[in-house]
Amino acid sequence: MTNQVDLIVDQIGQLCTIPAHEHGPQRGAKLGDLGIRENAAIAVTGGKIVAIGRRDTILEEYAAETRVTARGKVVTPGFVDPHTHLVWMGDRADEFEMRAKGATYSEIMAAGGGINRTVRQTRSASLLGLMEATKARLDRMLEYGTTTVEIKTGYGLDLSTELAMLSAIALLDAEHPIDLVPTFLGAHAVPPEYASQPDQYVEFLIQHVLPAVVAWKQEHWPGVLYCDAFCENGAFTLDQTRRIFDAARSFGLPLRLHADEFESLGGTALAVEMGARSVDHLLATTPEDAARLGASDTVAILLPATPFGLNITNTAPIKLLLAHNAAIALATDCNPGTAWCESTQMVLALATRTLKLTTAQALAATTINAAYALDKGDQVGSLEVGKQADLVIWDIPDFRHLGYRFGANLVSTVIKRGSVVFEQNLNT
Amino acid sequence: MTNQVDLIVDQIGQLCTIPAHEHGPQRGAKLGDLGIRENAAIAVTGGKIVAIGRRDTILEEYAAETRVTARGKVVTPGFVDPHTHLVWMGDRADEFEMRAKGATYSEIMAAGGGINRTVRQTRSASLLGLMEATKARLDRMLEYGTTTVEIKTGYGLDLSTELAMLSAIALLDAEHPIDLVPTFLGAHAVPPEYASQPDQYVEFLIQHVLPAVVAWKQEHWPGVLYCDAFCENGAFTLDQTRRIFDAARSFGLPLRLHADEFESLGGTALAVEMGARSVDHLLATTPEDAARLGASDTVAILLPATPFGLNITNTAPIKLLLAHNAAIALATDCNPGTAWCESTQMVLALATRTLKLTTAQALAATTINAAYALDKGDQVGSLEVGKQADLVIWDIPDFRHLGYRFGANLVSTVIKRGSVVFEQNLNT
Repeated sequence: MTNQVDLIVDQIGQLCTIPAHEHGPQRGAKLGDLGIRENAAIAVTGGKIVAIGRRDTILEEYAAETRVTARGKVVTPGFVDPHTHLVWMGDRADEFEMRAKGATYSEIMAAGGGINRTVRQTRSASLLGLMEATKARLDRMLEYGTTTVEIKTGYGLDLSTELAMLSAIALLDAEHPIDLVPTFLGAHAVPPEYASQPDQYVEFLIQHVLPAVVAWKQEHWPGVLYCDAFCENGAFTLDQTRRIFDAARSFGLPLRLHADEFESLGGTALAVEMGARSVDHLLATTPEDAARLGASDTVAILLPATPFGLNITNTAPIKLLLAHNAAIALATDCNPGTAWCESTQMVLALATRTLKLTTAQALAATTINAAYALDKGDQVGSLEVGKQADLVIWDIPDFRHLGYRFGANLVSTVIKRGSVVFEQNLNT
Repeated sequence: MTNQVDLIVDQIGQLCTIPAHEHGPQRGAKLGDLGIRENAAIAVTGGKIVAIGRRDTILEEYAAETRVTARGKVVTPGFVDPHTHLVWMGDRADEFEMRAKGATYSEIMAAGGGINRTVRQTRSASLLGLMEATKARLDRMLEYGTTTVEIKTGYGLDLSTELAMLSAIALLDAEHPIDLVPTFLGAHAVPPEYASQPDQYVEFLIQHVLPAVVAWKQEHWPGVLYCDAFCENGAFTLDQTRRIFDAARSFGLPLRLHADEFESLGGTALAVEMGARSVDHLLATTPEDAARLGASDTVAILLPATPFGLNITNTAPIKLLLAHNAAIALATDCNPGTAWCESTQMVLALATRTLKLTTAQALAATTINAAYALDKGDQVGSLEVGKQADLVIWDIPDFRHLGYRFGANLVSTVIKRGSVVFEQNLNT
């Protein structure tokens, strides 16, 4: 007897299932377990995987309305991008040129640029305008194989715009194939109107914005909402970060942190101590903090597109993080200031070079580990029975091409919750 | 009275015409003259540009069957890629992993890898198989905005396969929208059967292969055919290069050279002295040779994707080359060993970072200067009346986005000889 299912992905040349390890991320020497199967097929119904196995077995047991063949091709889980700033208005292309000519960040800020410019442009945008600009970026992400994306607020830095950014995320989550995960990042920068009184801004966040965000969540967002902060010189001190985290925790919001991008202020230790879901950037992380991350459930999210975008050669202490068994994930950090890059394929090409990860390690870091960084490891990030059918068929014969080749989109087909949502057709 | 034309590209937000300078490439401090016009339109007929001007003027004077609107978008000439090895069979993805784990090139060669592997696979491929593999790469190039491509032989290293590679190039030129320019690179490497007697291989090239290549050209290729060589330790000595160049010149073939990728053997001086059209790589070029290039018509072709592919940080001496007024072009070097990258957008993103070129300089180096590097400066590489209508409409508001953003394809529409040959549709 055959069971009727919605979709069968058939004749998969090389299936990378990328399994969770003990219901958690892959760590240390075990990072890079792709769980490869050859000559496999996947049966999908109701948006979920109901069977994975040898194609002859699957075809005996299941019949489908739609059959997608992946002959000679690679199949992986869809990428999960666990750190982006995707909702913004405008661009800062001219600042890229100024920096290339030697301008410092303070010179750019003095000329009306930097994050304040994006904040001005985002504040004056309409909700519809913000959604449209963000949708174009989500479309690119989907085309390049990403099916789950975290998005932070933090270009409003006032009550109404922070809430508008959250609304944009919730509305886009409803209308776009990509699943979105929102993070409140009111503590992204001190806005100009509080420039001389950063502590008052922190108080404003805690007294006024956080409660409104929590009220918004109760009404509009049934899923997880994180609270993030940027603990760095020029942004928020360790003490300010702790105050924000205490307040967020009192509201029941789980935590994430931007830390050690330029200097180590102790943010990583604080985040680990407070059980943050992730600490991100980590270019200046100390050996002690690498050990702390390894001993914790906090995921180390590395963002190699950011130093590339800035043209600096700093890298995260990857060997130490691996040696300490830290859970490592990779993300684009897509943002208008330092890294306007929607493509996790580009992040993979960078990670295999600047971080010297193997392609297998980088693939696990952009799928199953990135899913755990968003508390979605039980739903996405690997191809296992019962999980969402979010997968990418790649136009390559071996997964290693994802690290080896660069610059062009290697996607053949993107399937989200069992539906084909993108196909790349070379139409010449 | 209005003139009927085939195509009008209308409502161009920012038109980069990227003019030739004194019928030659842009040089030194003048590199990066984009000849920008706002609110422009272009009229095309018979595959050529018949008028460029303000849109109201163009629409008064011309009427077209097809009108393509580029509202708010950037238009540039199609990219010219003046250095590729696009005809090959197989891949070397596993070697990328071996290198990442610390294997040296000689260890990879000893394990049956390196260029010899590509040579084995290319020799045993059918002409149809070679063409199919190459066509997939040409399709990607076109999608990413490239409309003219140089392709070298050099994975045959025997008479029949070198000729098969030339045939593949000629046949693909006839059937693919991209215009191709062939280069004979028999002196790419010493093949295994001549490993202990490289001088005999050079004699074989000069006595047997070169005459056959010239005979092939007389029968099959009315355009220019270049002769290239790889002057480097482990490839060909300066003296061997000179012998090959002397022979090529006696057959009337213009010259190009791979030199100074790892060490300076004097190849650049030789190439300049012999009037080569270009010298390529130039990572180890001496100040004296930078001056020689500046004083010559030989184009310096820089290949930043290659050190990126190899994960080395060496760069060409760009400041010296600019200071000496060298004509600088950029190319992908697309090849299976060191840089499988079809995208000139990626090269631009690298050039604005690793070479610290401005986006304007890099754009001139990938269009008008690259066209002059292939002796096609009078036909392509800029948008001027009388030139081929090879152009790209970019889905960006300002050309600077091409250096600033990275990882995703920013093309909206590619037009080749006046026909729309690619459109990117985000089909979500």
